[in-house]
Amino acid sequence: MEPLEQNLRIPGPTPVPPEVAAAIARPVINHRGPEFAAILERVTVQLQQFFQTSQPVLGFPSSGSGMMEAAIVNCFSPGDEVLAVTIGVFGNRLAKIAEIFGLRVTRLEVPWGQAADPQAVIAQLDTLPNVRGVLLTHNETSTGVTNDIQALARAIRTQRPDALIIVDAVSSLGCVDLRMDDWELDVVFTGSQKGWMVPPGLAMIGVSERAWAATERATLPRFYWDFRMVKKSLAKGQTPYTPPVNLYFGLDVALEMMRAEGREAIFTRHKRVADLTRERARAFGLQLFAEPSHASNTVTAIRVPAGIEAKALTKALREREGVVIAGGQERLEGQIIRIGHLGYVHEPEINACMDALERQLTALGYQPETSTTPVEA
Amino acid sequence: MEPLEQNLRIPGPTPVPPEVAAAIARPVINHRGPEFAAILERVTVQLQQFFQTSQPVLGFPSSGSGMMEAAIVNCFSPGDEVLAVTIGVFGNRLAKIAEIFGLRVTRLEVPWGQAADPQAVIAQLDTLPNVRGVLLTHNETSTGVTNDIQALARAIRTQRPDALIIVDAVSSLGCVDLRMDDWELDVVFTGSQKGWMVPPGLAMIGVSERAWAATERATLPRFYWDFRMVKKSLAKGQTPYTPPVNLYFGLDVALEMMRAEGREAIFTRHKRVADLTRERARAFGLQLFAEPSHASNTVTAIRVPAGIEAKALTKALREREGVVIAGGQERLEGQIIRIGHLGYVHEPEINACMDALERQLTALGYQPETSTTPVEA
Repeated sequence: MEPLEQNLRIPGPTPVPPEVAAAIARPVINHRGPEFAAILERVTVQLQQFFQTSQPVLGFPSSGSGMMEAAIVNCFSPGDEVLAVTIGVFGNRLAKIAEIFGLRVTRLEVPWGQAADPQAVIAQLDTLPNVRGVLLTHNETSTGVTNDIQALARAIRTQRPDALIIVDAVSSLGCVDLRMDDWELDVVFTGSQKGWMVPPGLAMIGVSERAWAATERATLPRFYWDFRMVKKSLAKGQTPYTPPVNLYFGLDVALEMMRAEGREAIFTRHKRVADLTRERARAFGLQLFAEPSHASNTVTAIRVPAGIEAKALTKALREREGVVIAGGQERLEGQIIRIGHLGYVHEPEINACMDALERQLTALGYQPETSTTPVEA
Repeated sequence: MEPLEQNLRIPGPTPVPPEVAAAIARPVINHRGPEFAAILERVTVQLQQFFQTSQPVLGFPSSGSGMMEAAIVNCFSPGDEVLAVTIGVFGNRLAKIAEIFGLRVTRLEVPWGQAADPQAVIAQLDTLPNVRGVLLTHNETSTGVTNDIQALARAIRTQRPDALIIVDAVSSLGCVDLRMDDWELDVVFTGSQKGWMVPPGLAMIGVSERAWAATERATLPRFYWDFRMVKKSLAKGQTPYTPPVNLYFGLDVALEMMRAEGREAIFTRHKRVADLTRERARAFGLQLFAEPSHASNTVTAIRVPAGIEAKALTKALREREGVVIAGGQERLEGQIIRIGHLGYVHEPEINACMDALERQLTALGYQPETSTTPVEA
């Protein structure tokens, strides 16, 4: 089968640089030998730079959703009260997992397209004196909105100093500033297929001292996700069960590329390509879905113009242009399209994507001047 | 970093053929697009040929150990009585997971190096009128013993027609005959890094009709491992959360290679390389650990000769010969070495491994003629 030549512009999995692709094709090695131990150590140290934590970062053979379950089963007990601040599909998924595992979940649901307001979180916490944790999304992949985690965490910490702050940073970490230690976040997780430029299958999670203490009190049963077991193995340069060795080869190379580019330079590049995406969309008369003050630097959601069928648009882009973008999820299906600009991305791919989008929208009958009226949320 | 040129002879992860390595280096694609749906369909159909089942085979971003947890949380409820027939480290792991999740576990522990006796299982089941499941290991990677699953399943089925038979086939499936439907096995699982010639990170699990019914009754909470969610997505050519796309590329190619070679021919090849490994070990005066009637065709455990330090031997093999073998686990550490011969393996690699083993044993002072006395178990 021929390799596909596509401009993959979904918000994950994201394109993989040739150096990383070459690394994952390297011969497999013993996961209990010295070569793997050296990789695991290098990767852990580099990940700490991006999580901005002094705590070890744990790796799991898993998707990002697995880390949601891991956060819940390691930190809580059935009946524990948590506040889930949800701003889209993935915030709802985390809340649902907490419910499945028997936590008492209060949801603060923010209209999709908007970010969570720290004052609203404070008001909600007032009604929850026994809250043990707050579940947050840093970047909501389904809506293209980035929460101000620093402000939210500060508000939560002021109100409930001992509550665990759990942060889904799957599609933000490595692309957008997130300071786990400085902002006193307790559990923060991400996945290889997002900002890390590595194929999916390896998830990473940081655990604060406060969260480590919680793992000892938590009574939910756990084996595969047990943080303690992973930490214990990590100290010996190993994992408790077979790790995705070749994805670690890739992550090792990707993190070295990221180190060479520099953390701040990466954040700036993500802002630059995001600004370009938004500017080009607006210039063509398209409406952005996210509130502008919290528009994501990793994924842009664009309203589907009146008269355009979203599936026909994504199909035309894929088949005629080799550009793959995402549609909306759940109640946003047919309402928005989403363009990913995270990880291995620079201006040319964005310009190529937006050129193709303009051509195919035009082919489907879209006229920029008819669409400048704001659409209702 | 240079690719490592090693003869990887551990019982997983196993070497990856160049065609599979090239496939996993292919550009990532949209996991919700038609290309991935086509791969998922092909892979599922091919896996059914090796599981020998008409049921869909489910894939998870996971190690093999994750499938142990998946089997337990999907099929059982706290307090359910199960019999765990353990013949080594991995059988114990499955039993331990069942205990962690609140099942009432009776262990039938077989001395390491031996296989389970169907009559002993029948006798044990006599004492367990309410048993809901029996946990079995097909091939015990830690001891190099293969259970006669057909005989064990027949015994269990005669005694307890409704009990679920859970089979860890991580290091046997695809290498050794296992007939999920004919033998009435209920949950059977494996991992990509064993007989499938693919790097680790993708686990596969078959679920019988009896087990599907159990998933509806089971009350253990589950999200990531929920069989029902995976089955539902599979019908749409998708997975519930991001799959390890590139490992699927590899599995797709590997399964096509396996189809071309033929199932029976693969089983015969595994028997041939296993026989060769055992014959060469015996010819050099070494003692095999497994009882001969149940010696594994995927991994051979060899007793460390008196006067030889196991770690010095594996280190010398790795550093001087580029041959990587495994030591013993837990109480077998220092007692045995293990040679993997599963997946992408033919006679030359085994002969090279055994040549190297002979050289390094000799260099460490081993003399074949002094070691022909049987060693105590």
